Amino acid sequence: MPFVNIKITKEGATPEQKAQLIAGATQLLVDVLGKNPATTVVVIEEVETDNWGVGGESITFRRKAGR
Amino acid sequence: MPFVNIKITKEGATPEQKAQLIAGATQLLVDVLGKNPATTVVVIEEVETDNWGVGGESITFRRKAGR
Amino acid sequence: MPFVNIKITKEGATPEQKAQLIAGATQLLVDVLGKNPATTVVVIEEVETDNWGVGGESITFRRKAGR
Amino acid sequence: MPFVNIKITKEGATPEQKAQLIAGATQLLVDVLGKNPATTVVVIEEVETDNWGVGGESITFRRKAGR
Amino acid sequence: MPFVNIKITKEGATPEQKAQLIAGATQLLVDVLGKNPATTVVVIEEVETDNWGVGGESITFRRKAGR
Amino acid sequence: MPFVNIKITKEGATPEQKAQLIAGATQLLVDVLGKNPATTVVVIEEVETDNWGVGGESITFRRKAGR
Repeated sequence: MPFVNIKITKEGATPEQKAQLIAGATQLLVDVLGKNPATTVVVIEEVETDNWGVGGESITFRRKAGR
Repeated sequence: MPFVNIKITKEGATPEQKAQLIAGATQLLVDVLGKNPATTVVVIEEVETDNWGVGGESITFRRKAGR
Repeated sequence: MPFVNIKITKEGATPEQKAQLIAGATQLLVDVLGKNPATTVVVIEEVETDNWGVGGESITFRRKAGR
Repeated sequence: MPFVNIKITKEGATPEQKAQLIAGATQLLVDVLGKNPATTVVVIEEVETDNWGVGGESITFRRKAGR
Repeated sequence: MPFVNIKITKEGATPEQKAQLIAGATQLLVDVLGKNPATTVVVIEEVETDNWGVGGESITFRRKAGR
Repeated sequence: MPFVNIKITKEGATPEQKAQLIAGATQLLVDVLGKNPATTVVVIEEVETDNWGVGGESITFRRKAGR
């Protein structure tokens, strides 16, 4: 019954990549804790680069500044 | 002052249905714990079916596979 | 497959009350959106009153001040 | 390494305002707890007014009702 | 800069298992999306079985009922 | 009606520091977006250092390694 929430910036992750994140995170819970994959939920949230900050700056700003 | 976060797949929930979720979740906290509805917050997040996984598969995939 | 997260202050909710929150939130998703209860997950998080604020004040402070 | 998640209704916050939220929340963690700003992450989530409720009513409804 | 939140029931996960979850989730983001591990954050939340519900029942209840 | 969730490692933040985080985060939303402080909620979550990872390692491990 684990619940995994993955937040990433919205920068073009494809459906195939998302499917890999879902499969991989589910398998991780199976391998490490023996959880039942049938009830393991993974939710991916994609966040605009204006809305994500690190080091006190938005990712939009950091991308422009080459950071 | 409770905070309720409801995550569902984005598959056409109407404003009326969302209003019912908000009213119902608020009433639940009033009924069970005697919370003040005026300060009970409900946030509904709708997640694309590509971004939601269960059983190691995305909901998009499961819908196509008839699961 | 909905996921419901209920955050409340840690002030003595009993196992019975938590069971009512779980049953009620699950039923709400069934009634309003026709979701499958078997895959509806509810997680209750209890937060110390020092760690919850509203109006710029902690709940601990507000309780002492009679608010 | 703090993580700050700010949820607001989607009502026209500008990139400049979001940058101020990111800078301000990061500085707050530095000032109060001496955290390293380089590893402080801020994520802003904007929620449709249909999807946010308080007092058992959606914000969409409350805006129309003049509340 | 991804952020991964893993919620599990509090049923004796060891520090070693948690370390494996942290390492595995971080590597997943590196492998699938080429993210920088140095800024990938993983937070594990352990939830009491009274506070986690599925199928409208708490995990405490389901464990006793042999489900 | 904003909701702010601050996750930090559990390493001795005092009630006074938490009160400062609550007051500061609330004021930030007032200053930047003109939000009503009376309905601004701040929830602080303190996470064990075993349960928080960055760079693929737990904070417990990093503290011991002097990182």
